[in-house]
Amino acid sequence: MKALRIKNKNLSLREVKKPQPTENEALVKVLMAGICATDREIIKGYMDFEGTLGHEFVGIVEECETSPELIGKRVVGEINSGCGYCELCRKNLSRHCAERDVLGISGRDGAFAEYLLLPAWNLKVVPDSVSDEAAVFTEPLAAAIEILSQVHIPPESTVLLIGDGRLAQLIARVLKRTSCRVEVVGKHVLKVKRMKEFLHKGYLNKQPPNVRYPFVIEASGSTRGWNTAIDAVEPRGTIILKSTYAKNLDFNPAPIVINELNIIGSRCGSFAPALHMLESGLEVENLIDGTYSLDDWQEALKKFQEPDTIKVMLRMSDA
Amino acid sequence: MKALRIKNKNLSLREVKKPQPTENEALVKVLMAGICATDREIIKGYMDFEGTLGHEFVGIVEECETSPELIGKRVVGEINSGCGYCELCRKNLSRHCAERDVLGISGRDGAFAEYLLLPAWNLKVVPDSVSDEAAVFTEPLAAAIEILSQVHIPPESTVLLIGDGRLAQLIARVLKRTSCRVEVVGKHVLKVKRMKEFLHKGYLNKQPPNVRYPFVIEASGSTRGWNTAIDAVEPRGTIILKSTYAKNLDFNPAPIVINELNIIGSRCGSFAPALHMLESGLEVENLIDGTYSLDDWQEALKKFQEPDTIKVMLRMSDA
Repeated sequence: MKALRIKNKNLSLREVKKPQPTENEALVKVLMAGICATDREIIKGYMDFEGTLGHEFVGIVEECETSPELIGKRVVGEINSGCGYCELCRKNLSRHCAERDVLGISGRDGAFAEYLLLPAWNLKVVPDSVSDEAAVFTEPLAAAIEILSQVHIPPESTVLLIGDGRLAQLIARVLKRTSCRVEVVGKHVLKVKRMKEFLHKGYLNKQPPNVRYPFVIEASGSTRGWNTAIDAVEPRGTIILKSTYAKNLDFNPAPIVINELNIIGSRCGSFAPALHMLESGLEVENLIDGTYSLDDWQEALKKFQEPDTIKVMLRMSDA
Repeated sequence: MKALRIKNKNLSLREVKKPQPTENEALVKVLMAGICATDREIIKGYMDFEGTLGHEFVGIVEECETSPELIGKRVVGEINSGCGYCELCRKNLSRHCAERDVLGISGRDGAFAEYLLLPAWNLKVVPDSVSDEAAVFTEPLAAAIEILSQVHIPPESTVLLIGDGRLAQLIARVLKRTSCRVEVVGKHVLKVKRMKEFLHKGYLNKQPPNVRYPFVIEASGSTRGWNTAIDAVEPRGTIILKSTYAKNLDFNPAPIVINELNIIGSRCGSFAPALHMLESGLEVENLIDGTYSLDDWQEALKKFQEPDTIKVMLRMSDA
């Protein structure tokens, strides 16, 4: 089968052996996969990953020994596979299991291929009303919803969202459902425009004027975003960190203590609420800027790098 | 009256005018005051404070127009004076009011003097059973108890406390009351010994071996302490930052996001629960290493700088 693989920061589309599931694994035929900013970081060397890239996908189960009822079903898959036995796995927190592998990121070949393997318990059946395109957003949407699993944002709150990329777009959609008021600091006029219907206010490349927010969500991944967050949050307020940073931060932690801030790291989330939201009609397909075949991966990556692009898809198969 | 004043990083005991209370203020005759690590930072230039140093005290109210029932009473005082009218002040969070002054730290002369002024609403009457010595601990004890106001630490928890100084000693005492298991990373053998009865385990100048804690309290104020906290906390665990840092930190925030950590800054607390704890017999006087008259302030500071010293007191008056 074809697979887009990375080794020593070199990407290449190669013919590799179709994978063979172990007892607990399902063999999934990939229909579509999404390109994510994490993929770009991995190409630069993040996690020192070697193997097949890609972790956002929708596919059809072809083989599954432990859960044969999944065969033929259209599924998405949680990307972290834990040991299944530790305290974290037993709390449904396999995504924090010390022994975990992560699809297309660490220790497990990913979704930019014709087939992939995942433990059967990682798979979730996609409701018929959800398109392939929307289903690929399950993973990043779950990451956006994770904020609401970790933090109670009351409907009367005003939230400052920093960032206008793919994750920020999804976070704006999710926050809108809580009825809170969302303001955004972005740096791309076209991207901020694409989230306009979910916003009360947008600030382009500037600090919000003299307003203190009880909740600030940092989804820009920039040092500047971090500093904006620290300046904009109110005393005893909460900063939710959604993005990892390529560089170290050089900062004075005194304001965290003096203003008794609460800083919450937030990463992947559960798939079930994300599928519920897609099923109930959350619009995400308008975030897609292009869909390419796996053979055209170089064009797809080029499109992904354009400053105004939000989402690029790879289609491996039609059924 | 005599007052120990700082200007341009120079301390001197000077004769100054006895202060005159405004309508809302009480005039307090200081009985005793405690020297705190923050005083040392202020002497080095922290907050650029000019005026009379000192913020931990017990005293007798001599004048008070708005609350004459306080006259003659022995009191302690919350050190932050807010505007009284903003949203934070109305939520009993004057310590975060943007207009606040802070006794002996910012904008208000402090307690290393024969008299001080504070708004009447900042004062709390000290129960008769609490000694002057113990009452001086109200302010730092309130800062230790603030952790329990911000974070629910269930009794079955194991907590890692980093630091063995004055604040860490009080935190160990406070945590003990929750029935949780406390382990300490310290760097002074004698100081760790002085908190022994409140601990399950102590580690001297080393990381705890391969154990992950749901709660880590950083009270050492060192970069090393911060790194120990990040390494020792479990995924989705909580780090409580109790000390401000003299230097900037150079760190990679990725573990905060990847492990979904919760970092909570924690500063001053309410006096009422601290007075309750002292009244119910919490032992703090054994933390005092020396008591000096205000005239002997140089000797007191010398004693305070000795590596094994925890607490040094100044006595201004006996009644």
